[in-house]
Amino acid sequence: MSKTERFAGVLTPVITPFKPDFSPDPDRLVQQCRWMLSQNVGLAIFGTNSEANSLTTDEKLDLIDRLVDADIDAGAMMPGTGCCALPDSIRLTEHAVKAGCRGVLMLPPFYYKSVSDDGLFASYAEVIERVGSERLQIYLYHIPPVAQVGISLDLIDRLIKAYPGTIAGVKDSSGDWGNTKAMLNAGWDDFRVFAGSESFLLQNMRNGGAGCISATANVNPAAIHNLYANWRSDEADQLQDGLNVIRGIFQKHPMIPALKKAAAHYSEFSEWSIVRPPLVALTEAQETSLLAELQEQNFNMPGLADITGS
Amino acid sequence: MSKTERFAGVLTPVITPFKPDFSPDPDRLVQQCRWMLSQNVGLAIFGTNSEANSLTTDEKLDLIDRLVDADIDAGAMMPGTGCCALPDSIRLTEHAVKAGCRGVLMLPPFYYKSVSDDGLFASYAEVIERVGSERLQIYLYHIPPVAQVGISLDLIDRLIKAYPGTIAGVKDSSGDWGNTKAMLNAGWDDFRVFAGSESFLLQNMRNGGAGCISATANVNPAAIHNLYANWRSDEADQLQDGLNVIRGIFQKHPMIPALKKAAAHYSEFSEWSIVRPPLVALTEAQETSLLAELQEQNFNMPGLADITGS
Repeated sequence: MSKTERFAGVLTPVITPFKPDFSPDPDRLVQQCRWMLSQNVGLAIFGTNSEANSLTTDEKLDLIDRLVDADIDAGAMMPGTGCCALPDSIRLTEHAVKAGCRGVLMLPPFYYKSVSDDGLFASYAEVIERVGSERLQIYLYHIPPVAQVGISLDLIDRLIKAYPGTIAGVKDSSGDWGNTKAMLNAGWDDFRVFAGSESFLLQNMRNGGAGCISATANVNPAAIHNLYANWRSDEADQLQDGLNVIRGIFQKHPMIPALKKAAAHYSEFSEWSIVRPPLVALTEAQETSLLAELQEQNFNMPGLADITGS
Repeated sequence: MSKTERFAGVLTPVITPFKPDFSPDPDRLVQQCRWMLSQNVGLAIFGTNSEANSLTTDEKLDLIDRLVDADIDAGAMMPGTGCCALPDSIRLTEHAVKAGCRGVLMLPPFYYKSVSDDGLFASYAEVIERVGSERLQIYLYHIPPVAQVGISLDLIDRLIKAYPGTIAGVKDSSGDWGNTKAMLNAGWDDFRVFAGSESFLLQNMRNGGAGCISATANVNPAAIHNLYANWRSDEADQLQDGLNVIRGIFQKHPMIPALKKAAAHYSEFSEWSIVRPPLVALTEAQETSLLAELQEQNFNMPGLADITGS
């Protein structure tokens, strides 16, 4: 796809590896990104499941640089750049654009609750105006169960009308298919609607969606991409059912520690299990049940352990 | 009070002045802090009503320095230092301790929801261990209506047992008097319980509380301090009623823009009205009704306009 083409397909909020002192491990992140790319999965680094909101702005700027320095394709990168403080969002978004990222995934500022659409519009508008780049492509990040501050259809419509070349799409993590459907039916030109997980991937594709951005693509990338590539096939429903089984296993546990435990187990690199507070790692009992259920499904992460980070 | 004595009395989350380009105005902040101190109100800078979560860590570090450079008493300062990302909380807390602040008011990390007490304990423990100063005095900030992540009685108990010299108190902005009462009755040694607003000031004092940390002390400091100083007097209930009338007027409107509009009006400095996105200023109709209602109560902010910022 060309530099100006908008995203489509499967992306993942790449899990962020930490060292025992809780500092990020850039080499290991490079490894995970390489593995994702080898599986046709794009890099929505700094998403919710990346523990991005437990990272500082400086840490994120540095990690972008480390990925680019390691020749990770910025054209496959959609970093999360929406922070509570406007200058952080501006700085991070500007850096992503300069690094050549194809797009950014922007949370609304999420501390203050019950803010108006006028306030959220002003917030996105300030970022767009101050970054001031024609190359900026914003994917709005609607995740009310976590952020508690959502992005209404009205707000999207206002933003598209004001910045048609910049507002490129949305990740809908509301879990509300009716909301996703309303976005798909809104008639916005070349607006890319991503389901917030593979649970809605087939439904999204059948209704004109662009793909999904899913945490479990960190661990089950090939199968998820396979449904994306074959959603028109006769096996599509069966493929969706298969994805749901694996996702169901991860969803029984706290998602981020479970993803990291799987990465640790299948890469044989135990530090992958480390999460930054306020998250906590799985208990031994949780680990045992997670791995047993995965084994029962003959689950694997083929190729991960063969890719080196640096 | 001595440097090691814990806070008591009335404090306020000092409103943060912005310039038209949305950058902070340190001189104006110095002015507001001077006025607060002249009214016996302590400086809980970087609280919720300070729009602190719309400020970057660098902006907060700089503002602490600017206040100290302007001879604002750090012994009266309780900056908010709890951020989403642990390294931000550590850096800001360390800076506050080095600047001589008598305490810090710490939100839990608030992006990830449904986190465990184990995770929140680890988060506070990391800050305490990494700052590593005997001078650190932490006041826990419990504000579930906004942060959505609360601080349970169990968590407070665990933290006090692990760090008895550091965990100094709490601001309870739950709005739930039963919760405040449970903290007051917990029997923790020299633990300072602050009501989250003056609405509960008298009740808090009558049950062994330490005072209140209230947004409206930005505009109505003398009257609030007067109740604190005279809570044992026969007029106490009447004084509380008077405070409730003024607070009620502000609560009819979005609180932060209303406080700033009052500051702008009574200081005759119009820039005080500026709020940073995602907040929006009051509409003209809201401004008119706010000021009319305040005038009806013969409300004023005496002395504010006479204090210069730099």
